[in-house]
Amino acid sequence: MRATIMYRAGDVRVEDVPDAAIINPTDALVRITRACICGSDLWPYKDMQPAEKGRAMGHEAIGVVEAVGKDVGKIKKGDFVVMPFAFSDGDCPFCHEGLQTSCVHGGFFGFSESVGGAQAEAIRIPFADGTLFALPVREDNALVASLLTLSDVMGTGHHAAVTARVSRGKKVAVVGDGAVGLCGVIAAKRLGAEQIILLGRHPARIALAKEFGATDIVSERGDEAVERVRKITGGFGVHSVLESVGTEQSMLTALNITRPGGAVGRVGVPHYEGIPPSQPTFYQNITISGGPAPVRAYIAELLPDVLEGRIQPGRVFDRVVGIDEVPDGYRAMDKREAIKVMVKP
Amino acid sequence: MRATIMYRAGDVRVEDVPDAAIINPTDALVRITRACICGSDLWPYKDMQPAEKGRAMGHEAIGVVEAVGKDVGKIKKGDFVVMPFAFSDGDCPFCHEGLQTSCVHGGFFGFSESVGGAQAEAIRIPFADGTLFALPVREDNALVASLLTLSDVMGTGHHAAVTARVSRGKKVAVVGDGAVGLCGVIAAKRLGAEQIILLGRHPARIALAKEFGATDIVSERGDEAVERVRKITGGFGVHSVLESVGTEQSMLTALNITRPGGAVGRVGVPHYEGIPPSQPTFYQNITISGGPAPVRAYIAELLPDVLEGRIQPGRVFDRVVGIDEVPDGYRAMDKREAIKVMVKP
Repeated sequence: MRATIMYRAGDVRVEDVPDAAIINPTDALVRITRACICGSDLWPYKDMQPAEKGRAMGHEAIGVVEAVGKDVGKIKKGDFVVMPFAFSDGDCPFCHEGLQTSCVHGGFFGFSESVGGAQAEAIRIPFADGTLFALPVREDNALVASLLTLSDVMGTGHHAAVTARVSRGKKVAVVGDGAVGLCGVIAAKRLGAEQIILLGRHPARIALAKEFGATDIVSERGDEAVERVRKITGGFGVHSVLESVGTEQSMLTALNITRPGGAVGRVGVPHYEGIPPSQPTFYQNITISGGPAPVRAYIAELLPDVLEGRIQPGRVFDRVVGIDEVPDGYRAMDKREAIKVMVKP
Repeated sequence: MRATIMYRAGDVRVEDVPDAAIINPTDALVRITRACICGSDLWPYKDMQPAEKGRAMGHEAIGVVEAVGKDVGKIKKGDFVVMPFAFSDGDCPFCHEGLQTSCVHGGFFGFSESVGGAQAEAIRIPFADGTLFALPVREDNALVASLLTLSDVMGTGHHAAVTARVSRGKKVAVVGDGAVGLCGVIAAKRLGAEQIILLGRHPARIALAKEFGATDIVSERGDEAVERVRKITGGFGVHSVLESVGTEQSMLTALNITRPGGAVGRVGVPHYEGIPPSQPTFYQNITISGGPAPVRAYIAELLPDVLEGRIQPGRVFDRVVGIDEVPDGYRAMDKREAIKVMVKP
């Protein structure tokens, strides 16, 4: 089968690899109907050290179950499923608490040698019953793009909003105008935010953010961004910040635009050491929360809104590529020509 | 009147200063019946740079209102009051939300030139109606020591527990065996924690912690402490950590003993720059919260438990000094001869 392998920064290839197959009795084999390239895939694309065997890429997918191992009970051959970016046994204390990203037997797709990546024609799914979510629709559903976002970006934007404690009437800022940030706007709106400020500067993304519910745009950076957010929020900043970037500068901005007693929900993978020093963080009782989103836990909550068209996160996809064009998809996202690239194997 | 002034690290003196007096129409003048020395007073005692005018010390007190300004309506002459460590106007958005430590007109006692310290015979209270809490008992009440803790340490321990999300059945760790840590044990027990682990090594403090409800004691430090806490919590760490120390090492320990999805409530004034790097913090969705406790907001909740004897935070006081012995009180706390020193002016 064809699959995407990254060998070093900037060197991502689509190659013939052995077909994905069931190994353990709890596995399922999924034929991928749609995958995508994630903003987080751009980190290794920028800085990965050379690796002889390469790394199988991709952790977001939707597809059809082709086969299941003998211990798989809930998931059936033929199911149309969402594959969350983390696999999880569905049975440990953390899975029961809805924090499947901390599953004691779990892991992340595209990060382990034994589990392949999703930018491929098929993938082996460990712990199929715990990991996969069977959809009540068929693979040719018109909402497939939005359903695909339940694999990561929509669930991740929602996690940022939940951990930043967005609720009815709150003032919210979203740091970052990538697909996760845009889904964060959707999530904040959905949870009843009164004011939603997007910090970003890319015209197409800003336009989409406004359609999703952003009420204000701040394109300044650093201290100027902080000053501007304070100004448009009556001087105090916002109750909730959704941090979707992961740089030290973006985190510092997030902390400095948070209102006393407010919260930052971090979902951008941190590319900084400690959380940067910010005078208000302690003295103004600012809460820092977030992490990898347990998207598996959120699918049931978000799905009705997708199926009934109340939210349209699939609009973050502005380019579709075939499997062999995946490298060009990386290039386009890296150059910010595309917000998010869908892969149609 | 006699008041405590610190001039540099290790140099704290009790001197004659001009009598405290009403300046603004919203002020009250309080005759201090009990004050105390705080663990946070030991930071300048260790590292204060020389200052010619010195700094008036003390931010915890209980006393009797001697006079009120003409715009004071709720607080009356003769009221027996708790003075929270922060003053607050009672009328700004943050006061209404119960975050009086972020009051837009507020500040901290013992930190501004215009507002004196509480290790003194009397003190001017700004915004008396917003700041003071009038008690329903007289100044000779037998529970005065516990009532005094509502000025800071009991409210601060409670804040650590609240921001660390302690609730019924949770596993909790308290980092630090000072008066705040011990009050954190009381708070965790009061909120229904199932397991309460105190990280400390001082025998008298450990004994008191056990009486307050600590179920386990961990006297190891650093990695060994982390390993031990994991061992006695089934391998995962605790849901809630109350961090009452404020050093980089204590914060790192706090982060590393938190269970995935758990929270650290910080109340020890941080003596570190950024929050120290800890792999689990992001990847295990650990929340960092806390800050200066809005003790004013907590008095109404905690007072009935004090008055009815269900909690006895006043037991943290193990030494009483007169006003002129305050310097020796600092010495005793700094040498860890005393847990917490009460001042009886």
